[in-house]
Amino acid sequence: MIIVMEQSAPQAAIDRVVAEIERMGSHAHLSRGNYRTVIGAIGEEGTIDQNHLAALDGVEKVVPIMKPYKLASREFHEDDSIVEVGGGNVPVVKIGGSHAACIAGPCAVENEKMLNTIARHVRAGGATILRGGAFKPRTSPYSFQGQGEAALKWMRACGDELGMPICTEVMDTRQVELIERYTDMFQIGARNMQNFDLLREVGKTRKAVLLKRGLAASVKDWLLSAEYVLSQGNRSLVLCERGIKTFEDSVRYSMDISSIPVAKQWSHLPIIVDPSHAAGKRDYVPALALAGMAAGADGIIVEVHHCPSEAQCDGPQALLPETFHELMQQLRQIAAITKKEFAEAGEMVRA
Amino acid sequence: MIIVMEQSAPQAAIDRVVAEIERMGSHAHLSRGNYRTVIGAIGEEGTIDQNHLAALDGVEKVVPIMKPYKLASREFHEDDSIVEVGGGNVPVVKIGGSHAACIAGPCAVENEKMLNTIARHVRAGGATILRGGAFKPRTSPYSFQGQGEAALKWMRACGDELGMPICTEVMDTRQVELIERYTDMFQIGARNMQNFDLLREVGKTRKAVLLKRGLAASVKDWLLSAEYVLSQGNRSLVLCERGIKTFEDSVRYSMDISSIPVAKQWSHLPIIVDPSHAAGKRDYVPALALAGMAAGADGIIVEVHHCPSEAQCDGPQALLPETFHELMQQLRQIAAITKKEFAEAGEMVRA
Amino acid sequence: MIIVMEQSAPQAAIDRVVAEIERMGSHAHLSRGNYRTVIGAIGEEGTIDQNHLAALDGVEKVVPIMKPYKLASREFHEDDSIVEVGGGNVPVVKIGGSHAACIAGPCAVENEKMLNTIARHVRAGGATILRGGAFKPRTSPYSFQGQGEAALKWMRACGDELGMPICTEVMDTRQVELIERYTDMFQIGARNMQNFDLLREVGKTRKAVLLKRGLAASVKDWLLSAEYVLSQGNRSLVLCERGIKTFEDSVRYSMDISSIPVAKQWSHLPIIVDPSHAAGKRDYVPALALAGMAAGADGIIVEVHHCPSEAQCDGPQALLPETFHELMQQLRQIAAITKKEFAEAGEMVRA
Amino acid sequence: MIIVMEQSAPQAAIDRVVAEIERMGSHAHLSRGNYRTVIGAIGEEGTIDQNHLAALDGVEKVVPIMKPYKLASREFHEDDSIVEVGGGNVPVVKIGGSHAACIAGPCAVENEKMLNTIARHVRAGGATILRGGAFKPRTSPYSFQGQGEAALKWMRACGDELGMPICTEVMDTRQVELIERYTDMFQIGARNMQNFDLLREVGKTRKAVLLKRGLAASVKDWLLSAEYVLSQGNRSLVLCERGIKTFEDSVRYSMDISSIPVAKQWSHLPIIVDPSHAAGKRDYVPALALAGMAAGADGIIVEVHHCPSEAQCDGPQALLPETFHELMQQLRQIAAITKKEFAEAGEMVRA
Repeated sequence: MIIVMEQSAPQAAIDRVVAEIERMGSHAHLSRGNYRTVIGAIGEEGTIDQNHLAALDGVEKVVPIMKPYKLASREFHEDDSIVEVGGGNVPVVKIGGSHAACIAGPCAVENEKMLNTIARHVRAGGATILRGGAFKPRTSPYSFQGQGEAALKWMRACGDELGMPICTEVMDTRQVELIERYTDMFQIGARNMQNFDLLREVGKTRKAVLLKRGLAASVKDWLLSAEYVLSQGNRSLVLCERGIKTFEDSVRYSMDISSIPVAKQWSHLPIIVDPSHAAGKRDYVPALALAGMAAGADGIIVEVHHCPSEAQCDGPQALLPETFHELMQQLRQIAAITKKEFAEAGEMVRA
Repeated sequence: MIIVMEQSAPQAAIDRVVAEIERMGSHAHLSRGNYRTVIGAIGEEGTIDQNHLAALDGVEKVVPIMKPYKLASREFHEDDSIVEVGGGNVPVVKIGGSHAACIAGPCAVENEKMLNTIARHVRAGGATILRGGAFKPRTSPYSFQGQGEAALKWMRACGDELGMPICTEVMDTRQVELIERYTDMFQIGARNMQNFDLLREVGKTRKAVLLKRGLAASVKDWLLSAEYVLSQGNRSLVLCERGIKTFEDSVRYSMDISSIPVAKQWSHLPIIVDPSHAAGKRDYVPALALAGMAAGADGIIVEVHHCPSEAQCDGPQALLPETFHELMQQLRQIAAITKKEFAEAGEMVRA
Repeated sequence: MIIVMEQSAPQAAIDRVVAEIERMGSHAHLSRGNYRTVIGAIGEEGTIDQNHLAALDGVEKVVPIMKPYKLASREFHEDDSIVEVGGGNVPVVKIGGSHAACIAGPCAVENEKMLNTIARHVRAGGATILRGGAFKPRTSPYSFQGQGEAALKWMRACGDELGMPICTEVMDTRQVELIERYTDMFQIGARNMQNFDLLREVGKTRKAVLLKRGLAASVKDWLLSAEYVLSQGNRSLVLCERGIKTFEDSVRYSMDISSIPVAKQWSHLPIIVDPSHAAGKRDYVPALALAGMAAGADGIIVEVHHCPSEAQCDGPQALLPETFHELMQQLRQIAAITKKEFAEAGEMVRA
Repeated sequence: MIIVMEQSAPQAAIDRVVAEIERMGSHAHLSRGNYRTVIGAIGEEGTIDQNHLAALDGVEKVVPIMKPYKLASREFHEDDSIVEVGGGNVPVVKIGGSHAACIAGPCAVENEKMLNTIARHVRAGGATILRGGAFKPRTSPYSFQGQGEAALKWMRACGDELGMPICTEVMDTRQVELIERYTDMFQIGARNMQNFDLLREVGKTRKAVLLKRGLAASVKDWLLSAEYVLSQGNRSLVLCERGIKTFEDSVRYSMDISSIPVAKQWSHLPIIVDPSHAAGKRDYVPALALAGMAAGADGIIVEVHHCPSEAQCDGPQALLPETFHELMQQLRQIAAITKKEFAEAGEMVRA
């Protein structure tokens, strides 16, 4: 950690910073420039309280050198992590390394019939994990809020029948136990990326976690949220880029394509993209999905509906099944260029 | 609601939109332009499913005319709401209309002694509500997470002794019952502004709620989150502007000063500003506090510490007691210009 | 155009709006809702003064229906435009439709030798247009500002020798004539995207124009800037996405990948991406280039340097020649998926 | 300057960085941490090429310690600068230190009569500098572009008659000479903040400059643009905060209130706010103007029109004269709190 002193900082202020660094068990190393003194704190950065140093008199700024997360970092785990989703009644789907995966399904699970119809469509197209919302985070209290446990039951039955692990969103710590009983993969939505109690609770389970990036979260913040999960012992975490808030209003959110190479460089965790929620409009979904894979993503999560105008939520962004099938063919070609491969759904069915 | 059809939309698509609008119980009104047809849906906008219409073939965009929140709107409640905080063992503090209030205290409650010291400082300066964190939302899992229930007890005792209602953050639905027993005002932090289950739970209590704006939330999103609380029956809600994420990196967050006149025009709810978390650096806090009041805010929430370098959290943004006292004098002068008045702490003490 | 009246707007205000619309030669169409009146202005939208209507009493907002640009729109020109760069002493390079192109070279042209070295490297890799800065827009007045006309001469000679059209930035209206003499394609930089006098001047020439997107420009703003050029008679314009300002600080700018499908839907103009200036760091350049092509771009512009640590400007983002060569191979594969093709540099050499 | 090496950087890479620093005439100071080596470059920071060091192998990042601007910095000039506008036929108006000023007038100068009417209104309310656009930067090529030299003549005559210096926008280097003949203060608009040739040209004149902040410019970028002007010898520069692009869409731009205390801390230059262009809607203008002054600004620039619906540009944001008069009274009260004073227009008239 580097402490830059103000130009006018007196010697006493410098001495105080040095003393505090040494009190924390690190070694202080002074560089006196023509105008300012810069102090290096040499030791385990995790043991130095940046905040404390920044509040001392005469300190202009504190510059950390090490990354603030550990378990999520490439330094901690050099090779790409491969996360396994499913097992038991359903096949195991791998995400990460050379394994690409497609998670697909409706936005919300409205009823059993539509779920079964869509699940068959996405499985036929090449999706190997089934997504669907049982509890929906809605901006307005007057919007449809999901079918709750009934939806979980339909998803479980459908996933078991088709041999597809299922993924669904958890919004509240009180739902963790219930959802854990049914799901293969917890989704943490963008609005809950810094719901730290929720992160800890899913971190205590042994189900895979899909961590969507918050709408105002830097890549660093996102990896710190991953660290909350990992630090509880759950290492099966997949990152999901789904767009950030910017001034551009032609799409709902701006998919941050650069987060993919950045997260890949900083972390060993798999990362997929969610073009549906980023775009908010189906016309733009295929381009964003292809771009995400080309940038090095390990897969996509995408919304599909055979009759979008009847969807109770986010119909305008759902792909039609035939568009989804065409998209998957192009994604397989892109994956070949980036040395990844989508498993065939057919291979996935349990014996 | 207005539905703009694509330039190439065939008559069948227009007919379908009209039929759907009428099925929802509204009346469709067509305007055929030289290039496009525009359809007005006339009726109660709340009963029209925007999402459904947007997903129909041939629809380019749907433009809502009415505001999507109701209880939070000026149309619903024309006069400024006045929220009461406290009662019982502590005096009632009013926020809204001509009543300005200052909520002050440490970021985190580290121990009983520091709390009592700071509380006396802020009360002497003119704060009438005591703030302090018992459960802290921290970006890193390795940072100090708060003293929990012990801190709540210290706050309650301190508030009772000094005649100050207390305000503390709730982060998880499971904490609502515990915190309700101790506090006079729940704080919902920026990262939980769209934790909809939490909003509903505090909406079921009858304690005042301080709803901080999310880092990526528009004013509209913020009022929709307020609507979650109000729709559960709790009408004692105060909005708090605390900065949004922008590209500017000289401060932690950019306090969005225009949100004050906008929220005042759209809503009857009181609004205060949090210059401490916006700036992240004490040098800039007084300017932001004064600006907030001048823009029409109903008060401020501010962090104060007599020894910032010993603070376990956010020391660099805490004001020293003497700076706080000077600031309060200037704030009283600004309030006089905007026709508001801060209560005297002395007046507040119960008999 | 749709005019939404305030809920409290009196009849006189409505009458005034109607009268103004008719005065402008359009027809007014009223929809009276339960709460508000909405007025459609039917006619040529270009002849209606939105600003004027928005300033009338009782008007809440004005919603345009038509796009504000004309020559740049898909409605005006349904097929993809194909822009030709070069001719005369150098071959013609096509961009748009099925024609993808790679523009490459150093950031700044520092001296003739380095230019010739880099030009040979990029030509060997598959670039067909040579880029290089003669006049450099630098954030600081104390930074290297470019070699001026000398650099233009070196570029012209090098392009002629290798059979590559050249592309260079124009920063000031007074430079247009000089640069026009040497270059095949004007580059308008991000900071000048709304330098309207400059847009008009290059619009009066018949050289191709590469219009970079401004750092805070929406896609709509960008197409309006293109309209400035097109409306002067110059139809040879290529759009260039080079990243926008967001809160994310791991890269210099966030390449807005969704701008590609959006611009393609709204406009017939070709669009390429500049991954070098977006990323600001060479590690991330290949991923962004591949993503851009996969999203449907018509090519890339990229910085290459055989010795980046000696570059006088933007060395950290320059690709090494061998990385560039590998990238081009992958780009050709992506282009095949999106039904585009990069011309072979070999084919380009004039007889 | 501090150079942070990658964790894996070999000794040879460290040696190379040290050698380069010494070649540039500075001294290198190594701190070897447990994981990384950090190198301090001690000397005149302006002589060290950050870009060059950042491009060397093994360098993770380069952290500058000194501010990149010099003449604009508080270190260079400790006291507040006081800029003088006018002189000759009109009185001198001071801005900076304890001198607050109000610049007001129409957005565009449409004709002589409206200019004279508005000028009398704003002078009566307390404005001491008259603003008005002769050349207008418009997003669309089809919008009204200003009356050009005729407008300059009307402004000069009107300012001379009323004893008010005039301020008008310059958009192109070719206009500098013409506008210099008529105006007392050049305005550089937000879209030209990084039009470096234009900055240099106005820097060569001795007329005051009002430098608006770019829509995507950090405070640091803004001060670097100021440095372009100052470095040409023109020290009469006033900064103007006019809003930045954010995701919030209830206003046209978000006025960045924190830029005022930040710019005041980093620089000695006066700073005023432009609430009209930030808000884009007159309802919000007074709140933003008051907030700006309360945050420490040295004045405001505001648009006023006696008949906004007839304005050819930006009518919705123009204040009515009576609102402007009330606002000025409140601004004078705020100024008293921040130890500033608006000159009386009456005092300003030349003998």
